[in-house]
This record gives sequence, C-alpha cells and structure tokens, in this order.
Amino acid sequence: MRFSIGQFLHDRDKGGDTTFAVYQALKQCRADNCTALLFPKSTYHFWPDKALERHVYISNHDEGGLRRIAFPIFDMHDLTIDGQGSEFIFHGPMIPFMLEYAERLTLKNLTIDWERPMFEQGAVVEAGADFFDIQMPSDVDYRFIRDRLVFAFGHRQEEVWGFDEIDPATRAHAYQSGDRISWDAFKELKLSEIGPGRIRAEGPLRHRPTVGNVLAMRFGRRENPGIMLKDCSSTRIERVAIHHAPGMGLVAQRCTDIRLHAFDVKLRAGTNRLVTATADATHFANCRGLIELSHCLFENQLDDPCNVHGIYGQITELISEDTVLVKLVHEMQKGVEIVAAGDAIRFARHDSLIGYAKARARKTERISGDYFLLSLDDLPDGLKVGDVIENMTWIPDLEVRHCEVRANRARGFLITTAGEVLLENNTISAPGAGIKISGDANSWYESGAVRDVTIRGNTFLDCNYCCPDWGRAVIDIDPEIENPEAGEEYYHRNIRIENNEFRTFDTGLVHGHSIDGFIFRNNKISASGSYPRHHFMKRAIELRKVRNVRITGNEAKDGPLSMRINGQSLLEGDAIEDEL
Amino acid sequence: MRFSIGQFLHDRDKGGDTTFAVYQALKQCRADNCTALLFPKSTYHFWPDKALERHVYISNHDEGGLRRIAFPIFDMHDLTIDGQGSEFIFHGPMIPFMLEYAERLTLKNLTIDWERPMFEQGAVVEAGADFFDIQMPSDVDYRFIRDRLVFAFGHRQEEVWGFDEIDPATRAHAYQSGDRISWDAFKELKLSEIGPGRIRAEGPLRHRPTVGNVLAMRFGRRENPGIMLKDCSSTRIERVAIHHAPGMGLVAQRCTDIRLHAFDVKLRAGTNRLVTATADATHFANCRGLIELSHCLFENQLDDPCNVHGIYGQITELISEDTVLVKLVHEMQKGVEIVAAGDAIRFARHDSLIGYAKARARKTERISGDYFLLSLDDLPDGLKVGDVIENMTWIPDLEVRHCEVRANRARGFLITTAGEVLLENNTISAPGAGIKISGDANSWYESGAVRDVTIRGNTFLDCNYCCPDWGRAVIDIDPEIENPEAGEEYYHRNIRIENNEFRTFDTGLVHGHSIDGFIFRNNKISASGSYPRHHFMKRAIELRKVRNVRITGNEAKDGPLSMRINGQSLLEGDAIEDEL
Repeated sequence: MRFSIGQFLHDRDKGGDTTFAVYQALKQCRADNCTALLFPKSTYHFWPDKALERHVYISNHDEGGLRRIAFPIFDMHDLTIDGQGSEFIFHGPMIPFMLEYAERLTLKNLTIDWERPMFEQGAVVEAGADFFDIQMPSDVDYRFIRDRLVFAFGHRQEEVWGFDEIDPATRAHAYQSGDRISWDAFKELKLSEIGPGRIRAEGPLRHRPTVGNVLAMRFGRRENPGIMLKDCSSTRIERVAIHHAPGMGLVAQRCTDIRLHAFDVKLRAGTNRLVTATADATHFANCRGLIELSHCLFENQLDDPCNVHGIYGQITELISEDTVLVKLVHEMQKGVEIVAAGDAIRFARHDSLIGYAKARARKTERISGDYFLLSLDDLPDGLKVGDVIENMTWIPDLEVRHCEVRANRARGFLITTAGEVLLENNTISAPGAGIKISGDANSWYESGAVRDVTIRGNTFLDCNYCCPDWGRAVIDIDPEIENPEAGEEYYHRNIRIENNEFRTFDTGLVHGHSIDGFIFRNNKISASGSYPRHHFMKRAIELRKVRNVRITGNEAKDGPLSMRINGQSLLEGDAIEDEL
Repeated sequence: MRFSIGQFLHDRDKGGDTTFAVYQALKQCRADNCTALLFPKSTYHFWPDKALERHVYISNHDEGGLRRIAFPIFDMHDLTIDGQGSEFIFHGPMIPFMLEYAERLTLKNLTIDWERPMFEQGAVVEAGADFFDIQMPSDVDYRFIRDRLVFAFGHRQEEVWGFDEIDPATRAHAYQSGDRISWDAFKELKLSEIGPGRIRAEGPLRHRPTVGNVLAMRFGRRENPGIMLKDCSSTRIERVAIHHAPGMGLVAQRCTDIRLHAFDVKLRAGTNRLVTATADATHFANCRGLIELSHCLFENQLDDPCNVHGIYGQITELISEDTVLVKLVHEMQKGVEIVAAGDAIRFARHDSLIGYAKARARKTERISGDYFLLSLDDLPDGLKVGDVIENMTWIPDLEVRHCEVRANRARGFLITTAGEVLLENNTISAPGAGIKISGDANSWYESGAVRDVTIRGNTFLDCNYCCPDWGRAVIDIDPEIENPEAGEEYYHRNIRIENNEFRTFDTGLVHGHSIDGFIFRNNKISASGSYPRHHFMKRAIELRKVRNVRITGNEAKDGPLSMRINGQSLLEGDAIEDEL
C-alpha cells in the first residue's frame, strides 16, 4: 500500500504548514503497514508549531531541550519516503527527520533547507589592528540588545557568539582564520552599530579578517540535525540534499547498516549562502554493520564532513560485585545509550586506553544523561575507578567511495572505529587534517582504536590551510593519550595509505604516533601553490612510537620524501623497512 | 518491612551527597514493597549531580528542561518517608520530592531547604527620582557580566530580572511596591557597580524603593518545586516545612485526595532570609477528591499561598467527526495532561465560558506540550474552533482549616473549582486579594466556575496593600470573561462569606461580578490603621451582574456597609434582599 501526502493535506494546509498532515500520514502508514509515502513534486513548508515534541539525547549536540520533529518515523519498517524531487523548507528550531527503531526505511529524492538559516552573513568592509567592520545585507533583520548582536531564529532571539571568515573566491574558510574570532576570542570583542547595517567589532584581535571576505555570524545552539537516526537498522538515504541544518546534517546513534548514496550536504545553487549545516555533515556514534557512503558531496558545513566513533564511558563508582556506575563525560554525549544488555564491553585504563579485560553487559539502568548503572556478568580483577569502558559489539565497518568533501570548518574524515575501513576514490580538502584518526578518553571521549584502515586512490587537495587549529598534517593520526609513548602496546593498527594523490601547498603529509602497521606507498605528491607555506611540519612524514612501517614507491616532484620516524631523520629510500 | 537510609549510605556518602543512597533505597523499597523509609534525625545534603533525570511537564512552571529529582517516588504505594525531624538541604537546580503514580504515600517530619537559595537580598541604601543603590551583604558572591548582575545557582549563572521590595519591620512586601521594579520595569534600569558591593540601578522608576528596605533580587527560572505530585492518590504530607524552593512549594497535577497537615512554607528561624519559595506555596491543577489543608503556615513565598484550578483547553481544529485538536494556551501549562480517556468534558464558548454541551473522552494523543488530539464519544452540534473544553471529572473539593497565610507576593487563596469549598478559621493576609475567585480562558486559562464556596470564621488581616496590582478588594470575584455582563447566565454560584473578621486599612471588602447566589453576613469589620488608605474602591462591597444576594448582620465600627450592587448604591440595611 502506498500513500500520497495529498490524501492528508486539507485545503487549509496547501501552501501552508505540512507538518500536521505528515504526522497524520505517518500514523496511517504505521496502522496500514504501508510501503511508501509519496510527495508529488512541489515545495512543502514545515513549522515547529504543530510538530511532534520529544525529549531526545542526541550525540555531539547541545543537550537539554525538547525537540520538535517534522517526520517522526518511530517503530516503522519497510517504508520509503519519496520526495520525488520535492523541496522541504523548514522554519525555526526543529528536526526534519527522526527515525527511531525503524527497520529498512528509505528516504529519497528530496532536499532539506530552511527559509532563514541559523547563521547570517556580512562582508568585512574595514579592518585595523584592533577592530573590523561588517556590513550587513539590507534584507537581514538584526537587533542590538544592550551590546549583543541578536538574530531571530523562529520564535527565538539568539545572540551571536562567533564569526567564521570565508573567502568568497574559494568559498572556503580564509587562510589561517580558524576559530580565532569565535567563542572565547569573540567574547573579548565589543560590538556596536556605527551606521545603518554597519557593525563594528573592537578589541584584541587574535586574527584580523580581510576586507572583502565574508563573516558567517554564528548564533543558536547545536540542537537540530537534519536527519536523526536512532536504534535503526538498514537505513538507506538516496538523492537527498541538505542545504542547511541548525545542527549536523545527519546523526546516527546505535544503528546497524546505513547506506548513504548521493546524500549531499551542499550549498544551494542560486543563493549567496556560504554555509550549509552548522555542524558535521554526517556523524555516526556507536553504530555497527556497514556504514556506506557513495557519491556524496559534503561542503561548507561548520564542522567535519564525517565522524565515525564509539564513546568511552568512565567508571566512577564500584556499586556491588557485579555493578558499576558509569559516567558519560563529554557534555555533548550526555544520555547517549553507549551500552545495552548483551553487549561486549572492554575495559581500559584512562591513561593508556589499552584494553585489559572484557565482560558482557547484563543490565543497564539510566539515572540521568550523566550516569548509568551497568551490571556485567563479571567484573574484571584490578578494575579501578577512573577506568573507561568501550563497547566492542557496536563497531561499524566503513566504506566511503567517490565522495567529495571541501570548504567546511575543521577536519575531513574522522575515523575512530575498529571495524574495516576503506576510503577509496574520494576527493578530500579541509582547512584542518583531511583525515584524522584519533581516540581519546580525556576530552571528547570518542573511542576507539583503528585496526584496519585502507586509504587508497583518493585525491587530497589543499588541507590544513588553518593550521594548527584543526590538525598537524593532511593525515593526522593522534590518539590523545596522556603518555602515548609509554608502555609496550600500540593504540592503532594497520593503516594503509596507497595510490593517493596529494596536491598540497605545505610540507606535512602524515603525522602520527602509537601505530603498529603503517604503509604509505605509491602515492603521488605535488605542490599546489594555493597558499603560502606555514611550515608547521618540517618533514612530510613524522611518526613516533610506530612499528612495522613501510614507506615506499611514492612519487614527489621535490625528490624523496623527508621523514622522521621514531626519532630518526630519513629520506624515502633509506633502508627503513626492516628496521622498524 | 522498614528501611533506614543508613543501610544505603556508604562511608563515602556520610556528610556528603545523600542523593544516590536515596535512589538505591527507593529502588529497594519498590522491590521489597517496604512500608517505611526512615531517616535518623540528622542533616542530609543533596546535589543534582547523581540525581535521577526526567523530563516532566509541570503546571505553572517554566517548561522546557530536564529535571533532577532527589526522591523519585514513581509507581510506589503504601510507603511512608519519615524524616524523623531531619533537615534535607539541597544544592542548585533540582526537585526534592517527585511522586508519580504513587498511592497512599506519606511524607512526614522533615524540612526542605537550600544551602544557597535562588534569590539574594540587598539593602536599599540610597534612592532618588531616577536611581536607587543596593548594598550587597559581604558574604554574597555576585558578578557583573557586561551590565548584568549575575548570581550562581548550582552550576548555573543566572541574571537578575527583578526586585521585590520587602519592609524588614513587617517582613512583608512594602506598601504599594508590587512588581513595579521587576520584569519589564526592571529591563528599563541600568545596573552598575559604584563601589564595593554597592549596586546602582538607574532609569525611569515606576516605584522608588524606600531606604532601609530590603530588595529580594530575583533570578533563574520557575523550574523546581519542592514537592511535585503527579497522578497520585491519597497523598499525606504532615509536619513538613519548606524553607525554600526554586519554584513552588508543592504542585499537584491530576491527583486524587491530598491531605496537607502542618505543611508549612515558612521562613527558617535564625536566618535573615525574607523569602521562602520563589512561587506559590501550594498549587493544585486538575485534581479531584478532597484537598485538605489544616494547620499550615504559608509565608513570604513569591506568589500565592494556594491555587486550586482546572485548565481550559482551546479547540484549534476539527480533525474528523469525533476528533478535535486541542491547544494548551498558556506557556506555563504546556504538556499538562488535562484530559484522559473516560473523563467527562464540558464545552464552552471562549467569550462567555458558559458551558453549552458535554461529551466523554474516548482517547487522547499528545503531540507536544502545545497540542493534543482528543477523540470523544460525540462532538456537540455547533462546536466551533476557538471554543474551550473543561474537564468535569477532575474537580476537587477543598477544605482549608486553621491555616495562616501572610507576607507573600500577590494574592491569598485562589479558588477556581466547582467542588465544595470550605475555608474556615484561617488567618489571611496578602498584598493582593486575600481570596481570589476567578476563571478565564483568555490569559491564564484557569478553569472553572465555583458552585459552592463557604468562607467562614476566618480572620482577614490587612490585604491589598499593593493595590491594584494583585486585586481590587479583600475578596475579589472576577471571572475574566470578555463580556461578563452579556447573556443570561451567571459564571459563579453560591458564595457564602459569614462570621469572618476583617481588620483592614482600606475600604474595599468584596468586589465581584457574574454571581448567582452571594451571601455576606454576620462578619465583623474594623479598621487596622496599618497603612494609608489607597481608596481603590469607594465602597465596601461592589457587585455587578449578581442575583440572589444577601448582605446582612455585619458589624462595622464606621456604620452600615456601603455598597454598589448591579448599579444601585446602597447601605447595608436598605431593603435589598428581596429585590436582588
């Protein structure tokens, strides 16, 4: 059985708010086990007013509020939502799509955008040692409330808390701009209105923006992703474009098997907007099965294009012989279900992050976003308060093919999964590291170590043009461990980087440590000349505490690659293979 | 079976945070059907850190956040929590007690207080036409963030949004102070620090505070009541004192039979605090059975001592032949369950509030805090968008005996229930009306009309000393209907005021309209001389659109009571009984 949204739209809704019609349509779909909900090609608008409201803990978003959801796809299966090329336009704070306990759901052929986005743009018209002036476009409403610059987002009034500087020529973050006029640096600035639509920012400048560049003015919370997947399996998203989201493009939590094909987070043609989503394009926390991305474009979002990770929980109390109290440490992981009954758990010390024991979860009980009780079949000997746990059942494989990422804020691919990872035939450019392989239980608490990563046939265009804000090299392998070089163990394993092309303006290609098994071979390296060199790295490859390293067959115009491996300075071709 | 909290307190908890021990103790009580949880007499501290977290819609509080709950008493029955005289001290934003689906629960012998309350006090040390200065006590930490005065409450930084002026001689709101330096009036003031601990407020003053008086500085949200009852039956609270709550003292929603005996919201002896709870002392929304208050003292809270009401829902769409979309209109009623399946519903026009039809609820479905779908056995003829519904099943009787209310902000008893109401032998003083009988579907949406109210043997001390901010007369009967005098029907019925003593500084005793059946007899009236007269009312009793009125046997030192009834000016003793 297939429904068309037209069956649920009353005359009064047409051209108006589609939200309630969708709510009713999904209810009917659930009741009738319908297989498709079709949208005749058109533009549909959605307001939060009559949307379903739900409290939900969303990983890597600001916590604490109720969300309004336009498409609440809960407890459904074998349904396709087909936009047939329609545009879905949202208004104010809301989540377009949330799928929960959904099996074999497909979203396709639609675009997601907001009438007014959760950022605004102004041009830098003058800049000095301790000030700069912004000219606001004439069609943008803003207010000064006391000395704060305020924009409306839906019914909310939101204060600007940062500026991102974007070069209209590249449509990317300006060279070496970074976050240097956002957050704490922004707080030191005094804003005032010095003429019609002309805003002056005065104060100590950590970075002086360039006249002619555009400042994306950031406000609001990281609250509403474009698509939220939670406890879903076999989700497919095809030919879906997100032009804006007041949060991430897509977040998946505890999902099995996700396929994104021609899923784009991209600028909308015909507008002058230089920002898409206000956070990551895609983000996968505690998933399993295969995460597959093909022919996706992620551009101009205000955080990483793709992050795949688990979440470390911190043991804060031993409650009984089989139960511990576990804390979710990072503010943006609060309430995320990182373990459920039946999952395999690995214990590690928080300083080394090297696993020392395993157990199986028997029961969990959430107390709050901060804490849950975890009962296990067996508590390991030597368990200590402060140790961390990692979920070994929910570890996904990742395949990324024929995707392009560019012109966003921060990094490229963040890979923190012990599953099989293949990045092949992608085009990657980012103002930070193009690929970041991390893992830490000290700041973001994103687990875990990689075991099998293949990076081949990709083209790396300029990366790290805001260095060192978001990375040290094009590929940055950086477990954030207190003493990464202490102990016998290596955190990461088996990273193969081969047959890629690096076109870069600076020296650094790979920076890494605590790796057992590293191959860098048959890559081509050429100079782009796009930006001045910043010389953050003195050599192309710098590795510490590594073993089983092969660096061979690479082609660089400037001659053999310069390297420093475990304290030894070398050039490619020096006989290193066997020593390491 | 009885437990003592000591069984759940580990050494590490003693003198520290009792929250997690209580969580574990309640879990064990639930598992073992225990009948009492005892607290050896002591001082117990509670922090929100390890408290249970829950989203809950709380009537007449600010919505939108997760709450932390120290005593989450959910789905329990026949349990007594006995503090045995203990003090429970809370820290930061949290709800001390929340009972949900609890039957025959008793709380007794304990006090609730906060280490640092959600207000601070400063003395007025100088005042002029357009400024006043506050001296902060030396032990109070405050900050100026830009030009805003900020206090910490737990981990939060909260901006001051208003001042309440309190006269230390009476420990009550200063004569004619009202809310005139809070909210919008506050926003017009510019605050600055002109010396150590000395804060100057400058700007247009709607009210100039008096040097020597105390300003209670208000900040934070109305978020966490001291005790929250939801869907409970047969709750008893005895010998419990609330010295502070960052919200109301007690809120009950959809509860059956509540008995409060020696339940006080009162100042703590030995402190200089002049404020207790930051909102109502007690508040009952959509309850039924008997609400019984005896020997309670409610003083110095920053809103009414007792409010009993239903909630009107507004019909915003006709969805099908048996289903309507209903809106909860007031921001502080969002999400409250005003109807459930089986309840009897009455329909009324929003302008007259006179019921025109009845039906029975078959099903409800909450969409958000704003909206729910309501299916009925039968939609009445002539139903229109904009009509309101009222729940006729959840209507409580109210008995208040030997209680004292005084020195709070706003009104005294707010009675908006069609049940039997008896207020007997109470002592009532408030800066607004001592008793307010209202009902409206235009601003607060608090239903419904009274049918049987007896007010006898009470002593009314000075009321309305901040007039007209919170009332017109000592007893103010005021359905807020658009055209209260239009139509045949009367909103309220059967209000008997007899054998009371009124000791008041001003003229007005009763102001009312739209009443069928009003008796005011055998009351004694004397002049207190406590304050200058403000002459808001010219006569002792003013009534419009009333019938079946008896005003007789009253004793006033100044001679017969002056009245204006249905446009006629009279003195008591004029032959009015039969004409009306």
